Amino acid sequence: MTHFDSEITALKDNLLAMASRAETAVHQSIKALVERDDDLARAVKEGDDQLDQLEKAIDEQAIALLTKAPLASQLRLITVAMKISRDLERIGDEATTISRRAIELSKEPQLKPYIDIPRMCAMATQMLRDSLDAFITGDTAKARAVIPRDKEVDALNRQLQRELVSYMIESPATITRSLNLMTISKCLERIADHAKNVAEDVVYLYEAKDIRHEGAQAA
Amino acid sequence: MTHFDSEITALKDNLLAMASRAETAVHQSIKALVERDDDLARAVKEGDDQLDQLEKAIDEQAIALLTKAPLASQLRLITVAMKISRDLERIGDEATTISRRAIELSKEPQLKPYIDIPRMCAMATQMLRDSLDAFITGDTAKARAVIPRDKEVDALNRQLQRELVSYMIESPATITRSLNLMTISKCLERIADHAKNVAEDVVYLYEAKDIRHEGAQAA
Repeated sequence: MTHFDSEITALKDNLLAMASRAETAVHQSIKALVERDDDLARAVKEGDDQLDQLEKAIDEQAIALLTKAPLASQLRLITVAMKISRDLERIGDEATTISRRAIELSKEPQLKPYIDIPRMCAMATQMLRDSLDAFITGDTAKARAVIPRDKEVDALNRQLQRELVSYMIESPATITRSLNLMTISKCLERIADHAKNVAEDVVYLYEAKDIRHEGAQAA
Repeated sequence: MTHFDSEITALKDNLLAMASRAETAVHQSIKALVERDDDLARAVKEGDDQLDQLEKAIDEQAIALLTKAPLASQLRLITVAMKISRDLERIGDEATTISRRAIELSKEPQLKPYIDIPRMCAMATQMLRDSLDAFITGDTAKARAVIPRDKEVDALNRQLQRELVSYMIESPATITRSLNLMTISKCLERIADHAKNVAEDVVYLYEAKDIRHEGAQAA
C-alpha cells in the first residue's frame, strides 16, 4: 500500500467513525424522548462538538489529499467525502434539536404514545447505514435503493404533522407539546434527506453520474 | 490570462449568477407573502430548478478544475465554490418552502401585519450579499462582520415564534396560519445560517483558517 493509499484509507475511516457517531446521536436523541431521559438528551447535545471537529478534520485531510490525487476517481472520492461529512454534521445538528425538544417535552405529561416517531427514526437511520455500506462496498444498486425511501419518511412526517394539528385545534392545552413533536418529526424527515444526499453522492462517486434533482419536476 | 485563469473566472461568475438568483428567490417569496401574490409564489417554486442545475454545473466545473489546480490557494477556492453552491441551492429550497406557505396563507384573511418577517428577510439577504462581496473582493473583515449578525436573526425568529404560539393559544382559529408563519420565520433563520456558512468559507478561503464552530460551546 502506498502512502497515498493509506491516507485515503484514513480519510474513509474518519468518515465512517463520523457516520457511526451521527447515527448513535440520532438513536440516543429518540431514546431520550421515548424514555424521558434528560441526562441522555444532554449527553447528545454535548457530544455534538465531536462531530463538528470530525468535519473539520476530514476537510483538512481532503484538502491535503487533493494536491496529490492523480486520478479523476480519486478526486471524486475526496470531494464526495467532504460532502458526506457536511451531511453527517447536519445530522448531528438535527439530533441536538431533537434532544432539546425531548427535554422540553419531559417537563409535561406525555401527549400520546410514540409509535410513528421511533419508526421514522428507524427508517432514517437505516437509510443512512445502507448509504454508508454502499459507500464502502461500491454497491450503487444499494445506494439507488435508498433514494425512494425518502418519500416514505416524508409521508409519515406529513401524516404526523396533520395529526398534531388536529390535536392542537381540539385541545389548545396541547399546543406547546404538539409543536415540540412537530419539530422532532421534521428533524427526522431532514435526517432522511441527508441520508438520501449521501446515497446520491455514492452513486456519483462510483458511476461518475450526478443523479441529484432527477425527477425534481415530477416531485 | 491563461486558460486556467479564465476557467476559474467562469467558475466565480457562475457562483455569482447563482447567488443573485438565490437572493432574488428569497426576496420574491417574501414579496409574494406580503402582497398575497400567488402567481409570484408559483414563479419562485418553478424557478428553483435553475438553482439546482447551476449547482450541478458548478460541481462539474470544480471537479474538472481540481485536476489542474497547482496551488493550495486554488484548491481552496475550488472546494469553497462547491460548498457555497450547496448553501445557495439550500437557500433556493427555503425560498420554495416560503412560497408554498405564502400560497396557503393567501387562502385565509391575513393574521397580522407583517413587520418582523420583511425585516428578517432584509437582514438575511444583506448577510448573503455581504458574504458574496467579501468573496469577490477578498475582504475577510467584511466576511467576519457577517457572522455575529446571524444571532440577531435568530433572536427575531425566537421572538416571532413565541408571539405566534401566544396567538395560537389565545385563538385556536389562528393555528394553521400561525404554523405557516412559524415555518416562514424558521426558513429565514436558516437562510441567515447559510449566509453565515458562506462568510465562514470566505474567511477560510483567504486566511486558510477554519473558523467554523468557533465558540460553539458558548452558544
